[in-house]
Amino acid sequence: MTDEIKQRKLEHITVALEEGIGVSQRAGWGDIHLVHQALPEIDLQEVDTTATFLGRRLACPVVISALTGGHPEAMTINRNLARAAERYGLALGVGSQRAALVNPDLVPTYAVVRDEAPQAFVIANIGAPQLIDQERHPAFTLSQVEQAIAMIQADALAIHMNALQEATQVEGDRRMRGVATALRRLTAEVTVPVIAKETGAGVCREQALLLRSCGVAAIDVGGAGGSSMSALEAARARSHGATQAQQIGQLYRDWGIPTPIALVEAGIAGLPLIATGGVRSGLDVARAIALGATLVGMGFPFLKAASESYERVCELLEQTLTELKIAMQLSGAADLASLRQVDVVVTGETRAWLSLRGFEEELRALANRRV
Amino acid sequence: MTDEIKQRKLEHITVALEEGIGVSQRAGWGDIHLVHQALPEIDLQEVDTTATFLGRRLACPVVISALTGGHPEAMTINRNLARAAERYGLALGVGSQRAALVNPDLVPTYAVVRDEAPQAFVIANIGAPQLIDQERHPAFTLSQVEQAIAMIQADALAIHMNALQEATQVEGDRRMRGVATALRRLTAEVTVPVIAKETGAGVCREQALLLRSCGVAAIDVGGAGGSSMSALEAARARSHGATQAQQIGQLYRDWGIPTPIALVEAGIAGLPLIATGGVRSGLDVARAIALGATLVGMGFPFLKAASESYERVCELLEQTLTELKIAMQLSGAADLASLRQVDVVVTGETRAWLSLRGFEEELRALANRRV
Amino acid sequence: MTDEIKQRKLEHITVALEEGIGVSQRAGWGDIHLVHQALPEIDLQEVDTTATFLGRRLACPVVISALTGGHPEAMTINRNLARAAERYGLALGVGSQRAALVNPDLVPTYAVVRDEAPQAFVIANIGAPQLIDQERHPAFTLSQVEQAIAMIQADALAIHMNALQEATQVEGDRRMRGVATALRRLTAEVTVPVIAKETGAGVCREQALLLRSCGVAAIDVGGAGGSSMSALEAARARSHGATQAQQIGQLYRDWGIPTPIALVEAGIAGLPLIATGGVRSGLDVARAIALGATLVGMGFPFLKAASESYERVCELLEQTLTELKIAMQLSGAADLASLRQVDVVVTGETRAWLSLRGFEEELRALANRRV
Amino acid sequence: MTDEIKQRKLEHITVALEEGIGVSQRAGWGDIHLVHQALPEIDLQEVDTTATFLGRRLACPVVISALTGGHPEAMTINRNLARAAERYGLALGVGSQRAALVNPDLVPTYAVVRDEAPQAFVIANIGAPQLIDQERHPAFTLSQVEQAIAMIQADALAIHMNALQEATQVEGDRRMRGVATALRRLTAEVTVPVIAKETGAGVCREQALLLRSCGVAAIDVGGAGGSSMSALEAARARSHGATQAQQIGQLYRDWGIPTPIALVEAGIAGLPLIATGGVRSGLDVARAIALGATLVGMGFPFLKAASESYERVCELLEQTLTELKIAMQLSGAADLASLRQVDVVVTGETRAWLSLRGFEEELRALANRRV
Ligand SMILES: Cc1cc2nc3c(=O)[nH]c(=O)nc-3n(C[C@H](O)[C@H](O)[C@H](O)COP(=O)(O)O)c2cc1C
Ligand SMILES: Cc1cc2nc3c(=O)[nH]c(=O)nc-3n(C[C@H](O)[C@H](O)[C@H](O)COP(=O)(O)O)c2cc1C
Ligand SMILES: Cc1cc2nc3c(=O)[nH]c(=O)nc-3n(C[C@H](O)[C@H](O)[C@H](O)COP(=O)(O)O)c2cc1C
Ligand SMILES: Cc1cc2nc3c(=O)[nH]c(=O)nc-3n(C[C@H](O)[C@H](O)[C@H](O)COP(=O)(O)O)c2cc1C
Repeated sequence: MTDEIKQRKLEHITVALEEGIGVSQRAGWGDIHLVHQALPEIDLQEVDTTATFLGRRLACPVVISALTGGHPEAMTINRNLARAAERYGLALGVGSQRAALVNPDLVPTYAVVRDEAPQAFVIANIGAPQLIDQERHPAFTLSQVEQAIAMIQADALAIHMNALQEATQVEGDRRMRGVATALRRLTAEVTVPVIAKETGAGVCREQALLLRSCGVAAIDVGGAGGSSMSALEAARARSHGATQAQQIGQLYRDWGIPTPIALVEAGIAGLPLIATGGVRSGLDVARAIALGATLVGMGFPFLKAASESYERVCELLEQTLTELKIAMQLSGAADLASLRQVDVVVTGETRAWLSLRGFEEELRALANRRV
Repeated sequence: MTDEIKQRKLEHITVALEEGIGVSQRAGWGDIHLVHQALPEIDLQEVDTTATFLGRRLACPVVISALTGGHPEAMTINRNLARAAERYGLALGVGSQRAALVNPDLVPTYAVVRDEAPQAFVIANIGAPQLIDQERHPAFTLSQVEQAIAMIQADALAIHMNALQEATQVEGDRRMRGVATALRRLTAEVTVPVIAKETGAGVCREQALLLRSCGVAAIDVGGAGGSSMSALEAARARSHGATQAQQIGQLYRDWGIPTPIALVEAGIAGLPLIATGGVRSGLDVARAIALGATLVGMGFPFLKAASESYERVCELLEQTLTELKIAMQLSGAADLASLRQVDVVVTGETRAWLSLRGFEEELRALANRRV
Repeated sequence: MTDEIKQRKLEHITVALEEGIGVSQRAGWGDIHLVHQALPEIDLQEVDTTATFLGRRLACPVVISALTGGHPEAMTINRNLARAAERYGLALGVGSQRAALVNPDLVPTYAVVRDEAPQAFVIANIGAPQLIDQERHPAFTLSQVEQAIAMIQADALAIHMNALQEATQVEGDRRMRGVATALRRLTAEVTVPVIAKETGAGVCREQALLLRSCGVAAIDVGGAGGSSMSALEAARARSHGATQAQQIGQLYRDWGIPTPIALVEAGIAGLPLIATGGVRSGLDVARAIALGATLVGMGFPFLKAASESYERVCELLEQTLTELKIAMQLSGAADLASLRQVDVVVTGETRAWLSLRGFEEELRALANRRV
Repeated sequence: MTDEIKQRKLEHITVALEEGIGVSQRAGWGDIHLVHQALPEIDLQEVDTTATFLGRRLACPVVISALTGGHPEAMTINRNLARAAERYGLALGVGSQRAALVNPDLVPTYAVVRDEAPQAFVIANIGAPQLIDQERHPAFTLSQVEQAIAMIQADALAIHMNALQEATQVEGDRRMRGVATALRRLTAEVTVPVIAKETGAGVCREQALLLRSCGVAAIDVGGAGGSSMSALEAARARSHGATQAQQIGQLYRDWGIPTPIALVEAGIAGLPLIATGGVRSGLDVARAIALGATLVGMGFPFLKAASESYERVCELLEQTLTELKIAMQLSGAADLASLRQVDVVVTGETRAWLSLRGFEEELRALANRRV
């Protein structure tokens, strides 16, 4: 199994970099309009992007999403990401640590993150389906989970909820019954705060409440509209000649709740939210925060940059930060708390969905916060 | 006449396979959004797709629509379909049995279905316009209808309502007055339950109530958005050089009520509904069931597969079933009854139509079933 | 001036036939949905299309719009149209009769209509701007108007309102003040009923009431979405090298109220309405009648057919009638009075406009007439 | 710095003329529908376009927007614009006068405007960010501002609010804190009325109220949908090889409130409004006035015409005026005051935004002013 996982990790990276794995459906960020302030009364240079997440201050609200590990190629990527996270004061995740739990030789491909980023907020990563017994392997024990945390001296643990990916992955883990119970037990026992993290299909209202009841400290709403794990598996299936799996992966490419919608839906749980999925600029970061996110995750853009060089990651970050600051200045928000109080006009499909789901009043309030 | 019908049957198949007979209008399935459940608490392998229809349990809610018969070519197609229906526990229909009633030599092209599928739920097929006297031929007698049922030892009888096709077919039967009365008489006398089946133009609210008052046991809403019988006749007309008929057929290609709308409209009759028309994946099957369908029919995809081989039909079915199960797992529905209780967000043209027709409250309820 | 008008008449025909003069804006007929009736209980052959207009029974509700006259080429076109009108029992108009009033040599190009269609409902045609003094010529006298009526023994007189065309025509009549008063005087004095006829920019609610107060017997709402007189003048201007006029004509190509909207707006005046503008099939004819029209006009399609041959006009009419009858049968309307009682679902831009203008309740009523 | 500004002024013109700097987002003018009046009772030639702005009568409501100055090339452009303004009785602005304040040699490139247009309403131009100390240069003194006014004997002073442009310009002034206070002081002290002028990102409700409280006499809402200063800076950045700046400029190309929306939002301040941004015809001018604008500005079209010749500017003006008059006649408005009372139907994204921001009732009122 070791080699299988290792091989899959490599394929995930190469496929993601070589194929279009974004969903064809519009992410919906274009439906989110910040209202321009002609005289913003804020100096661009003094815009303050510091965020507080789970009690820690971060220099900016961008998270480098969980992406990789478990393969020598991944080590360079993780090193580049971690160096940048350290320099810019970001939070960052590692990819699923199963590979290293199964094969200790792979530990350094994850541990490199802490080596390079001693001060950063680092997030361990374990799959929700692996919290229970699966057909092909038993549930992780608490001690294994603790091992994953220790491996990178993590500040928090992300439990990624990827039922869609497992379902469309040829060798995927198809069981999900009992995960909530296992998660509830885990949050009670584990030493760091737990983040429940979707990987591209979004978290709705009811699931946000369920996750809160399971004791998670934060939710990454991981919505549709960015990298699609289903499209990723479709591309892998095609490269293996598995036509049917490829078609199923393609069909489910559009499945899921777009990130901005998930953000509003999950908001009712009152937990800190990370908005991930299709965020492609500092302007999108600003939109997500104005809709209520505490942090904003980006995956693919960082993967691409880090596969080139550390410098590219820094460039991407600087550009993103500049874009975020411009959005903040022009919206009249000197800091992130103010950004959560600016007027936001939501239109298009995003509005149609939310209105039908009972959020029409909330949308009106969002559009008229300054009145 | 015998040869004319036989020839038409062949043309229908070849034209359908060679030309684009789908309507250009969007079917509207993309307007139907199931709400992703990040922790569905369901194992994919235990998802239960068994359905109950007219008192019979079926292994899955997919029906192979009435397609063909009446020509030697059709025999192979029907054999392939029937073998698969038997194996997977599906219901299946045969094409209009007029050809065999008029020319007994053609009986085997239909009977093959029962030969190959002794256990399956098999549906006989007669046209509604043929229940009354037409210009060129008299109404079928009760005994002829019973003959059609007996020919395949049918479990139910579908009366297909294809006024659009008859109107756009050069040699079509143009009378429809008296059909409701004839149908009422037939449902009272015939030995099996009767399904009123539209063939691509949909069943609205008022017609569903009319059909219920005629004593039918179920309605196949057969909506617009999939194979268009009008486009089929247009293509036939063109191949015969009948320009005017071709243009009329093209014009009416878009006529009719899209399947998802018809499903909601017809729902008020409280009868079991089959959703047919433009269903192209197991995800569409799930959408239809979540909107209230008891079974879901597919025509063209099965015709195409069966014209290739039995194996292709099996592959299509397995893929469809897998897709359906994924949709169910990710929506948090372990069985079809639960699938009818999940949240469904309806947007776009589908919502606009239904809202104006008085279903706005129902759409709100659908979107918030879990609250 | 004689020759100028004669020359313009020829240009209008040739330009219309050679250039695309339809507006780019969607006519909006696709926003009008008749609700399919699966068991319509009507025989196609018994569908009754007879209409009553201003006290006269007509075999079908289609009007051949005012198109031409005033040039030898026009004579053939008018002859072909009139023969078909006589044969099929249609109403038909002639083009503006100014040319013949100014130059009696041209009378036969109009009179041919009555020669060929002794029984048809024939409509004389005079421009509204010519009811008042213009810069380049005085107002028509009552006796001149009577002369126009007598010229073709007209059953009614259409006063075409073409302010848009005059404004965009290089040599156009730019005055409109006093037209309403002149029209009021005319309707009181003239011997036949007067139809106020827009030529492509539509009649709104308030103007319909104004026209009623002027004593007109019927309104042709002549809406946007079909032939654009502005585009026609743009094309003429281009052929004369008048760039600025061409650009202005192009700009105003989209001006005006689309026909379906105008039909609903003008409906409040309670007068018989003719729906003209972008009607391109018998299905559109049915849509217009279901929205409340008494008759439905088509211009360009008849111009094109008649410029080919009498037979083409007959073919066009037969096809249109067949299409209309199919729409009626499938909507469950055995005659035109019933067609005005069927459910009509209005969506898209048409609904958006009408809803904002205060017709939302009317749209709901239209969509639920059968309840 | 002198040369830097001079050089930038040249680049602005050449880049604007050579590259597409319009925003990809639709300006939204197509969402604004004037309601056609079939019998408008107005002679085209008597349509009165005179406007009153800040106590001055102008022959027509079109303003030539602030565009250029500060470079020899600009002198010809300004001369052509001023000659036309004088001839047609328009108001016109000059580009930012900073260049001439810093380098007196450049004064003639602005002063030419007053030389050529002794009677015209001429508007001086200073940037809002330059009212406060910036990193690279101190705030303008009152005396410098008066110098700018005197330079062209200006009738009013526009303070352009271009925070977006400064933020996306490589060498831009990034401070905005204190601008409102400085503006308040300025309006109290300066000898001519002050116009607060956005340059393409629009003025929202709250900002309009802020500007009123600062004592400005009028607001140019300068909305998104026409020339984008951000796209302009992106194009400049590209020509300098500054990739990151280019990408940021591109990203913000779509930022801002579209002009028609800004017009309605800013309307609540009750000040005279100039509508600038994406106005491309006399029809757009009419739409803006019907929505409440006092004057309507056009930038790019005048820049393009003036860079060709004086005659092209005259042609553009005559065409625009003719188009405006046609719109007025056909809407039934003999003068601009009447044009502000005609029915306006607002659809699409413009309506969606305004409705959510609390203007739904106002939109209903606009659509039914004549009732
Ligand atoms: C190649 C690849 C591998 C990923 N692996 C993981 C993973 O191991 N664990 C996890 O929680 N998310 C994983 N993700 C999901 C990302 O963390 C993120 O949620 C997703 O990419 C959506 O963000 P984006 O649209 O910005 O790319 C992966 C994404 C990609 C593209
Ligand atoms: C070639 C062809 C022949 C058909 N013949 C019949 C028929 O004889 N009786 C009937 O009830 N429906 C008939 N149908 C309609 C189908 O049963 C089904 O309603 C229709 O194809 C819509 O489903 P689809 O979009 O999945 O193809 C036929 C369809 C096709 C394509
Ligand atoms: C070439 C041409 C000439 C026309 N001349 C007249 C006319 O003289 N009088 C009139 O009332 N309408 C005239 N019309 C307008 C038509 O009667 C009709 O209103 C218009 O064509 C819209 O209908 P359509 O979209 O079906 O073409 C003319 C239209 C065309 C295309
Ligand atoms: C090349 C160029 C230079 C401009 N310079 C100024 C300026 O110096 N001051 C100012 O207030 N606006 C300036 N503007 C903005 C215009 O005045 C106007 O607001 C903008 O072009 C939007 O109008 P449009 O879409 O009609 O072009 C400039 C615009 C362009 C295209």
